[in-house]
Amino acid sequence: MTRRYAILAPERFETDAKTAHGVIRYGDDEVVAIVDPALAGKRVRDVLPYLESDAPIVESLVQALEFSPTSLLIGTAPKGGGLPPEWRSEVLAAIDAKLEIVSGLHDILGDDREFRVRSRAAGTAIWDVREPPDVPLFSGAVYGVAPPVVLTVGNDCAVGKMTVSLELVRAAHECGRNARFVPTGQTGIIIAGWGISVDRVIVDFAPGAAEQLVLYAAHQGADLIVVEGQGALNHPAYGAVTLALMTGCAPDALILVCDPARTAIESYQTPTLPYNELIEIHERVLATIKPAKVIGIALRTLGMSDAQARDEIERATRDTGLPADDVVRFGPQRLYAELAPRISKTVPLRGDASG
Amino acid sequence: MTRRYAILAPERFETDAKTAHGVIRYGDDEVVAIVDPALAGKRVRDVLPYLESDAPIVESLVQALEFSPTSLLIGTAPKGGGLPPEWRSEVLAAIDAKLEIVSGLHDILGDDREFRVRSRAAGTAIWDVREPPDVPLFSGAVYGVAPPVVLTVGNDCAVGKMTVSLELVRAAHECGRNARFVPTGQTGIIIAGWGISVDRVIVDFAPGAAEQLVLYAAHQGADLIVVEGQGALNHPAYGAVTLALMTGCAPDALILVCDPARTAIESYQTPTLPYNELIEIHERVLATIKPAKVIGIALRTLGMSDAQARDEIERATRDTGLPADDVVRFGPQRLYAELAPRISKTVPLRGDASG
Repeated sequence: MTRRYAILAPERFETDAKTAHGVIRYGDDEVVAIVDPALAGKRVRDVLPYLESDAPIVESLVQALEFSPTSLLIGTAPKGGGLPPEWRSEVLAAIDAKLEIVSGLHDILGDDREFRVRSRAAGTAIWDVREPPDVPLFSGAVYGVAPPVVLTVGNDCAVGKMTVSLELVRAAHECGRNARFVPTGQTGIIIAGWGISVDRVIVDFAPGAAEQLVLYAAHQGADLIVVEGQGALNHPAYGAVTLALMTGCAPDALILVCDPARTAIESYQTPTLPYNELIEIHERVLATIKPAKVIGIALRTLGMSDAQARDEIERATRDTGLPADDVVRFGPQRLYAELAPRISKTVPLRGDASG
Repeated sequence: MTRRYAILAPERFETDAKTAHGVIRYGDDEVVAIVDPALAGKRVRDVLPYLESDAPIVESLVQALEFSPTSLLIGTAPKGGGLPPEWRSEVLAAIDAKLEIVSGLHDILGDDREFRVRSRAAGTAIWDVREPPDVPLFSGAVYGVAPPVVLTVGNDCAVGKMTVSLELVRAAHECGRNARFVPTGQTGIIIAGWGISVDRVIVDFAPGAAEQLVLYAAHQGADLIVVEGQGALNHPAYGAVTLALMTGCAPDALILVCDPARTAIESYQTPTLPYNELIEIHERVLATIKPAKVIGIALRTLGMSDAQARDEIERATRDTGLPADDVVRFGPQRLYAELAPRISKTVPLRGDASG
């Protein structure tokens, strides 16, 4: 199914609507209108030129219906967690207009009695993107996957691991490869139309979820698999989800994604680590299971001048000997071209070293 | 509430009833009877002398009722997962006799309609030990806990991390300390009567669950907290739960628990690691967040002669420079006495190093 999205992001579209921006920039589905009274009358391009979209911004869901959406996407998270009353009424209006509801919120909209009853009556669906399916335990089947698997890791959450993964897949496509992006979080899932929110899986099954995603991408005929990373290995709260992806995806190579301006892990006192310490710790942990190397560094240089960004990129290469770039600022082609020759399926399981 | 347990372990009590054995050996609650037709007429001591229990083994739940149990414990896991019909009828008989049902099975008995309806009618409870409560995200509050926190880690699953934790707490009690065992898996929870099955928590919340357990133990006035570890850091399926405990408990010291006979991770090809590699990898990961050292090694020497066991223990000390022992074979006192002076609250958060 091809979706035509109306995106609900009242008062927050410009500043705090990461999911909306991701879907507009990278999604295969069309975005036909944004609901944000604060910006009504403008177009996406007027507010956020880099999204390169002419979609209109409108006052209400009723106005958005004029653009024939098939689906309403909750494009931002409401403050405090619960849905504010004015959002509820917009969601109900969408259900009554037979729109599918797509939500990446923590709160499962399908568990809300009113939404469930009304959507059943309207014959439409609620897709709670964060709700994971049942998955088997990790089996090791992923070790037999034919194409190389690349996983993005980083120095913190929210440093661009999804964006870098998507940009590298785009560059691979431009070079004629049948690369696949593997989504592991809500925005990635909405962009790609499939995936599992791995951070919502029971910890025992999280590596199994990662494995299933890679197996699925391989089964779809991918010749290169790029997995969206989550968290950070040294994150006191989200290190476990990072490790689940590292073991469950059994990557052949890692791309290190860093915001060099970040000095401490978001919301915690834990300091972020220098490049070489990050590289060493990731490689050291994987070496005990299935060895994989960091083969390149993607930097988030938002807020720097081009000259500053170039300095930062040069410093990363000087410190580590690895190719580096900001794939948003300078495009993914250069970094991909440097990485491509290094992306191979050559690393044995640790246990196979003598075999 | 003090429980009096009847334990259901048909045909499996001797060979495959880890939970039953743990509760008999370490639980504060009394075990009044075992239901296992294959061994009916014997006593626990006749079958497994080391459990030091005179509890009778009986044919059926009805016979067990003569010993006035308050609770029926499912003491082993049925083959295939689902409850076999002959077990169902015993559970229902227990419910009708107003016994509390205590289960560590993956299948949540409280979700079974028949069990739920019947237990409500009988006015008795079903305690599904594996079902975790809702917990908050990791907050960092654990960094402020006053007593030292010790976490057991290991070279694989099922090498004795729970047993070692319980034995070290017992030794600490004998030395007059108010040590607390922190249970993180179903058997430990049933033994201690509280805890969270951390491997059943959503991965994002698993470190928060570990943190809450340590905070609770500290709040109870513990002067030493020993946390039951889970999995193994280099386990391809269960490494994430290990890391969640390592970050969430914020331990001041680690005890490494190893089965030296294990050459590969259970059910996987991943090789187990030598002592020094295990020590290095655990310390390396924690050094990025809150540094902690491995301060001793507990070995599982089951199946060896006493002389072989002593050789193995000496080798561990020679290889690592750390105190080592088998706390089951030789008692926990020697290892505890060697560890006690090293167990202190001195290690700063990584971020505090300069402060």
